[in-house]
Amino acid sequence: MIDLSSVAAFGRALASLPSRDAAAADAARQRQQQLTKPPGSLGRLEDLAIFLAGWQGRAHPSMDAARAVIFAGNHGVAAQGVSAFPAEVTTQMVANFAAGGAAINALTGAIGMRLDVVALDLDRPTCDFTTGPAMDEADCLDALQQGAAVVTADTDLLLLGEMGIANSTAAAALCLRSFGGTPADWAGPGTGLDAHGVGHKGAVIARAIEVHAEALHTPFETLRRLGGRELAAIAGAVLAARHAGVPVLLDGFICCASLAPLAATAPGIVDHCIAGHCSAEPGHARLLARLGLEPLLRLDMRLGEGSGAAVAAAVLRSALAAHNGMATFAEAGVAGGA
Amino acid sequence: MIDLSSVAAFGRALASLPSRDAAAADAARQRQQQLTKPPGSLGRLEDLAIFLAGWQGRAHPSMDAARAVIFAGNHGVAAQGVSAFPAEVTTQMVANFAAGGAAINALTGAIGMRLDVVALDLDRPTCDFTTGPAMDEADCLDALQQGAAVVTADTDLLLLGEMGIANSTAAAALCLRSFGGTPADWAGPGTGLDAHGVGHKGAVIARAIEVHAEALHTPFETLRRLGGRELAAIAGAVLAARHAGVPVLLDGFICCASLAPLAATAPGIVDHCIAGHCSAEPGHARLLARLGLEPLLRLDMRLGEGSGAAVAAAVLRSALAAHNGMATFAEAGVAGGA
Repeated sequence: MIDLSSVAAFGRALASLPSRDAAAADAARQRQQQLTKPPGSLGRLEDLAIFLAGWQGRAHPSMDAARAVIFAGNHGVAAQGVSAFPAEVTTQMVANFAAGGAAINALTGAIGMRLDVVALDLDRPTCDFTTGPAMDEADCLDALQQGAAVVTADTDLLLLGEMGIANSTAAAALCLRSFGGTPADWAGPGTGLDAHGVGHKGAVIARAIEVHAEALHTPFETLRRLGGRELAAIAGAVLAARHAGVPVLLDGFICCASLAPLAATAPGIVDHCIAGHCSAEPGHARLLARLGLEPLLRLDMRLGEGSGAAVAAAVLRSALAAHNGMATFAEAGVAGGA
Repeated sequence: MIDLSSVAAFGRALASLPSRDAAAADAARQRQQQLTKPPGSLGRLEDLAIFLAGWQGRAHPSMDAARAVIFAGNHGVAAQGVSAFPAEVTTQMVANFAAGGAAINALTGAIGMRLDVVALDLDRPTCDFTTGPAMDEADCLDALQQGAAVVTADTDLLLLGEMGIANSTAAAALCLRSFGGTPADWAGPGTGLDAHGVGHKGAVIARAIEVHAEALHTPFETLRRLGGRELAAIAGAVLAARHAGVPVLLDGFICCASLAPLAATAPGIVDHCIAGHCSAEPGHARLLARLGLEPLLRLDMRLGEGSGAAVAAAVLRSALAAHNGMATFAEAGVAGGA
């Protein structure tokens, strides 16, 4: 596992991102040319198979050991009235995950994917970042490491999701600091704010950026001051997955926003990531464009929990079924092969 | 099973399209409001569940008895050099389906969906419709009935696909006659024509329309003169599914074009249909707009065989898993329910 035990170690991990296995990707691309179909006719399914081959380092990629992980955290900024739901819903939804009643349970269950929930100190919300840093260094490093810890060597695909009332406010603050623009570019309705609520949320974000302006000089400082435990955990998991050769399937706005501070200095951090979908949360399309990711699905989903990524995982499974299961022109005796 | 034994019977079936079960759809909509998520946050997944509820006539729709059917046919117009592949590939691909080596085998296999292939007189291609009608009445009625015959009462979802070298030329002719425009609006590269080939294909289509212009007064005449056996079979299957209360998952350009002559007179014929995806074949986006269908996926696929619909079926399965499997706010003890 990568070392994220200090701020310096985090910086080193981010500065030394491994590349994909070009030979494995090429072998997968050649296989696609030989399968019984017009070249390129499976479109994005072909790209996905080649992508997974490159990052898994084998011509026949798999997702038999795929794993969905939801990180949950509580946010001091919830006290500012930035969510349509009360803060206790984070804990209630974690219980719902445990009981198997949430969307992500149904969606991962439908494709037989393992699901784990990592609740990060729910009884100890982060500080309200309009008045001070959300986390101290030790807290943020701990969250990064808890994220990294979910990446095991045998995982072949990591699906990331989150739960945390008020975390779309933290996500919007991370995006604003990392990519600029206005608060209105990044503050959206989240779980269901009205226009007035969205305006208030934008003002809260603007205040947070102002309070911390002098100190937001590194990805780590941005993450710990404006982020949250589940956001830092997602960043840690993505970093660890990269170093372990595990491709990542990202979910919606909040999940992707966890990477914004990292991507602002190291755009290649998302190279091993697939954007599962484009959420209905307005900032997500803008964020995906900044990250250089083309989402797989556009289904107007805006739930979080990894739910959009879990639907995308069903598409990935289709891509791999075609890639690994189809006959070649030679095997099938079909005319017209390359 | 509906009666499609005569031209008049076909007309009656098209003129008496049943509606969905509004009460079942409402019950499904109410259930979505009670599930543990912000209202509407599953976006299109919610719409799909409500859609399937309405057409299956039950608040908890299923796809345990889903069935994919590929119809295959050969086309006299292939002699005009309108395809990148030789005509014998239709039969070779049907053998590939039977052996389990094609994309549709892998894609339906990945989701455990039953697949059947109906080969329609492959040794007897339709007539070249640039010189005469593609089919005589008996041939066309037989194809319609063979399509209708795949719909059984216990089927809960019907996925339709096709295989037939040169059938994108027939599909384009059906679209041009049904919805107007220019040959270039509807003629595309198919399995891989270059620009010159596409231009030639457009000219072939224009000639066909001219040859038959005086006779294309009814959906049946358009279908039999410009269509093909697998296209007529798809039309028959969609009609029979409607009368049997079976929702349909449509594939790409050719599959959808089979409905163009019917939709030109009876636009409601697609009301029980979901457009699985928007193909990379340029005419498909235009056709979907004319049919009033919003595609579920945009993955740049252009293979046919039902392949895009089969990927979409994985998304439908996710939608139903959430709809049927999630806990309600009351069941889970989560605050904030409607």
